[in-house]
Amino acid sequence: MKIYPVQMNIVPGKPELNFETLKKEVEKAVLNQCDLVVFPEMCLSGYLIGDLWEEHSFIDQCVEYGNRVANLSASIDILFGNVAREEIHGENGRPLLYNAAFYASNGCFEPLVQCNGVIKSFLPKTLLPCYREFDEPRYFFDLRRLAYSLNQPLEALLKPYTRKDGIQIGISICEDAWDSIYQIKPVSILASQMNENGFMINISCSPFTLGKSDARHRVFGAHARNHKIPLLYLNSVGTQNNGKNIYAFEGDSCIYDAQGKTIYEYPKFEAYSTVIEYEKKQIRFFEDSKPQLTGMAEIRRALVYMLSENLRRLGIERVVIGASGGIDSAVSAVLYTEALGADRVFLVNMPTRFNSKTTRNAAKDLANNLGCPYLEAPITDTIDVFCRGLSSLSFERSSVSLKVEGIHYENLQARTRSATFLATIASVLNAAFTCNGNKSEVMTGYCTLYGDTCGIVCALGDLWKTQVYELAREINKEREIIPEASILIPASAELSDAQNVDEGKGDPIVYAYHDKLFSFWMERWNRNSLGDSIMALKDGSLYEKLSISKDFFDSLFKSHEDAIADMKYWWGRYKGIALAKRIQLPPVLCVSCRAFGSDLRESQI
Amino acid sequence: MKIYPVQMNIVPGKPELNFETLKKEVEKAVLNQCDLVVFPEMCLSGYLIGDLWEEHSFIDQCVEYGNRVANLSASIDILFGNVAREEIHGENGRPLLYNAAFYASNGCFEPLVQCNGVIKSFLPKTLLPCYREFDEPRYFFDLRRLAYSLNQPLEALLKPYTRKDGIQIGISICEDAWDSIYQIKPVSILASQMNENGFMINISCSPFTLGKSDARHRVFGAHARNHKIPLLYLNSVGTQNNGKNIYAFEGDSCIYDAQGKTIYEYPKFEAYSTVIEYEKKQIRFFEDSKPQLTGMAEIRRALVYMLSENLRRLGIERVVIGASGGIDSAVSAVLYTEALGADRVFLVNMPTRFNSKTTRNAAKDLANNLGCPYLEAPITDTIDVFCRGLSSLSFERSSVSLKVEGIHYENLQARTRSATFLATIASVLNAAFTCNGNKSEVMTGYCTLYGDTCGIVCALGDLWKTQVYELAREINKEREIIPEASILIPASAELSDAQNVDEGKGDPIVYAYHDKLFSFWMERWNRNSLGDSIMALKDGSLYEKLSISKDFFDSLFKSHEDAIADMKYWWGRYKGIALAKRIQLPPVLCVSCRAFGSDLRESQI
Repeated sequence: MKIYPVQMNIVPGKPELNFETLKKEVEKAVLNQCDLVVFPEMCLSGYLIGDLWEEHSFIDQCVEYGNRVANLSASIDILFGNVAREEIHGENGRPLLYNAAFYASNGCFEPLVQCNGVIKSFLPKTLLPCYREFDEPRYFFDLRRLAYSLNQPLEALLKPYTRKDGIQIGISICEDAWDSIYQIKPVSILASQMNENGFMINISCSPFTLGKSDARHRVFGAHARNHKIPLLYLNSVGTQNNGKNIYAFEGDSCIYDAQGKTIYEYPKFEAYSTVIEYEKKQIRFFEDSKPQLTGMAEIRRALVYMLSENLRRLGIERVVIGASGGIDSAVSAVLYTEALGADRVFLVNMPTRFNSKTTRNAAKDLANNLGCPYLEAPITDTIDVFCRGLSSLSFERSSVSLKVEGIHYENLQARTRSATFLATIASVLNAAFTCNGNKSEVMTGYCTLYGDTCGIVCALGDLWKTQVYELAREINKEREIIPEASILIPASAELSDAQNVDEGKGDPIVYAYHDKLFSFWMERWNRNSLGDSIMALKDGSLYEKLSISKDFFDSLFKSHEDAIADMKYWWGRYKGIALAKRIQLPPVLCVSCRAFGSDLRESQI
Repeated sequence: MKIYPVQMNIVPGKPELNFETLKKEVEKAVLNQCDLVVFPEMCLSGYLIGDLWEEHSFIDQCVEYGNRVANLSASIDILFGNVAREEIHGENGRPLLYNAAFYASNGCFEPLVQCNGVIKSFLPKTLLPCYREFDEPRYFFDLRRLAYSLNQPLEALLKPYTRKDGIQIGISICEDAWDSIYQIKPVSILASQMNENGFMINISCSPFTLGKSDARHRVFGAHARNHKIPLLYLNSVGTQNNGKNIYAFEGDSCIYDAQGKTIYEYPKFEAYSTVIEYEKKQIRFFEDSKPQLTGMAEIRRALVYMLSENLRRLGIERVVIGASGGIDSAVSAVLYTEALGADRVFLVNMPTRFNSKTTRNAAKDLANNLGCPYLEAPITDTIDVFCRGLSSLSFERSSVSLKVEGIHYENLQARTRSATFLATIASVLNAAFTCNGNKSEVMTGYCTLYGDTCGIVCALGDLWKTQVYELAREINKEREIIPEASILIPASAELSDAQNVDEGKGDPIVYAYHDKLFSFWMERWNRNSLGDSIMALKDGSLYEKLSISKDFFDSLFKSHEDAIADMKYWWGRYKGIALAKRIQLPPVLCVSCRAFGSDLRESQI
């Protein structure tokens, strides 16, 4: 039996486009004399489409294109994921929807659920994720609740599909196989009902996070090994978003043999399809896997992939980047250049008297290294005219002074750079401008609202500052693209004399320590609080929990009281002013296991 | 039996503060010789607190304060809502949480679920809302799933509580009583098991939307009437938010008699408690209900309530408002003045040569009428210096021109006003500045990012422009506060000669028509698409669906093709550029049945 699994680039919310992709791939599969072509979960609708699931005419479209897929199955079987609708109302008062798998053969959908007189031409997903960016129960009914409502055990509904040639396929959808936190194990239920001749398929639409491949090999390999059945994992590629968060779908589809070994891996971040063959509990493949990227190289690829896919879809062909000579804007410039090409990335350095020659030269060197258009635009004249004008005015009915100095003058510089210079230059060039903030800044609000928080997308917003440095070193591995000065000077906003990099002055955050503390607070699955970190400090477990040495910690603080005061300060910012800024932040490219945005839902308290 | 239902102001995320409130109210109830004191749903934790539900130390706190409430019940019974935790893991891999009711008596919690050897000292909520701003299944397990997991019918777990004096109380939690879209009817299940002596209580933490009181009287009145059992509905007051959306909790607690009549109503937007008495299927009360606000007067009250509660909590004592002389900034200025007092609301008019004398005078008149500090700050010098400087510069490696004109110059004015003038003035005054945008602008993106979209909160962001005019007329009912000119001139951004109000020119949106079209697209429970509106136009049902006359419609468009082209234009903006702006918008005060933000989850497609 020849199978053609299609690692497809799904365009969210565009069933008409996805249908065209799917149709071409079916034709290729037929040309290759395959018996079955497989597409990922939700391959017509897309997955992260927000409340578009509530638009009934969109569902009409998805159902209609699903029927057209069935029409393509005259000479080949087609297994694919789509939304299924039933004309009875669900608990939100709208027609009942399922995230489902369909199996089309001879122009018709095969019945995949048959139980007690109830027949369904699709198999609903059993486990619906409802955490982080996932909101499936908001939109979908599931096989478990269907079983309850029919008063039947799940086993009576969740069965492998048996083809006419006797080969059985155990079909699961994404989360169904990630069952470790669930009491119900859909893959085991399927496997326990399979005979000697068959294999399992998991169709997914599963976003990238760093380290996911290893976790998946463990979980999916164990399924295959435990049940001694080969398993095909088919994921999609492309980018999808839920407004505040942009995700890459990395593909990385895999074949696990009946011993649980990963025997074939599709390339990541690339639409791809190939012929494989199933015979007697063996899946064969006809080409070697390409080597896969890992670590920072993989993150770099993921970020560039998200940028290029996303900017293309938004119709943005040029970007303007404020290049300060610091590390964040340098790394951003490299990523955008890789996504768009150097001639479409406009670097603008906007000095005041607080900006050192060191950083100004670094910005210029960066532009030269990349070959990007470069502009030095001093902002002082504009600021001076504004401040002079304002200080000469006074309110009627109030005697407040309008003199701009200190922190007010610092933030004005940041806002003038973004909202006046970058925004206007971008506007004139028919371009967008970028937000270069990192996760440490987003976490602490160490940034100026309507200043450096502005931009079309925040490319580094899910990387701690320490990771941005790692990424810079990865970028410079072969040759110096990012000027060494940007890596070596202290991180600094250069908004006042107190932040003079040539005197070794800079940000108030000790990233090597604070990034780990911040991760302890916001990234752990069982999230920790200020109290948890104080308690860990007191009972001596903090060093291990943050993976830092006691010596390093002791070099930072005079006493535990100092350290606790510091924790309290940053915790207050994280939950207070920083959140107020995050609410207005641009979308973040996600790579971690917890990003700010819809991934971490926050209330102002 | 004397009961003391406490319409409590819940501070979200602050169990220590809520416990203090609760303790004082218990003392008052004891002083009043009551037998039972009742508090709303989630009265210790708050309800809209986002992923704070995942912070285990926060749950520890809630449980601990819940236990302290039990300690207060030595001489009075206490019924209250709180989170319940069980030390077995739920499907998110964290301890199982319930949104639950607790009944404390003689210092201990009474068992509220007893079934087949399983005893629980709390009653879990049965129906968990999972739509609009509600995300309960993300955090909580429910009574229905508990029943499934015990393989028991819901009836075996969901029973009225019987007091030692034989009086039965049928306890439900918020959504449990809003059962019309659900197949399961918790209130009916409770009522069917109640004897001749008892009443029902619904504890809620239910946010305000316009028209909710009427809907609730219908639904809750029907429960009481159908089962011939009096019903006490107890809601909280205060404001809570989920980042992008701010909600008022209006209170409006009610007593329905056994005939379903509303016999007593608590005041809205006000912490309140009073003694009532239950005897023989009758609930008696000892004071008359106050008259309730309706329509625009109620919206005004809700908005001012949200502003004052929210600014106070954020520690904001002063605001700066860009007063253009138009209707939005005028209405905003009135609301903030009512919330903070005139001397804390700083109005700034920022004219260019495009701003008419008419609007400049209107802005000044508004400040005089309100008694607010007022400043006229022309922005032209700053803009001119910037534009001249920029046009003299050129990029290395690119020959693009940096001349700022047309739409680029228009948007620059808006950004200079907000990000340069208002932000700096606010910064110097230790104030916040406001976003005065309305829902029509938020829907269409008819606003400038980092310009008029900026601000600490968007007070009118859930009111269509036509509703802003209604609100202005409501405000001017007794005397002219908002200058007539602001109401009579055409709505206009005054950013170019093409928007000259004295020549009758203004916005490209015909609000009387478009607001209704926009509502048809985004506010209906079964959401409509562009295609639905085109189809309705073609089949003649559009006029009725939008509640507009055919004559009015025909006066706007030369042909159906024109009308369709117009629909396509605004639909494209709504789903495109406007969404990109909404992602970075400040929090919106919510009053409608569908607000932009977490209430309507949108992906960029």
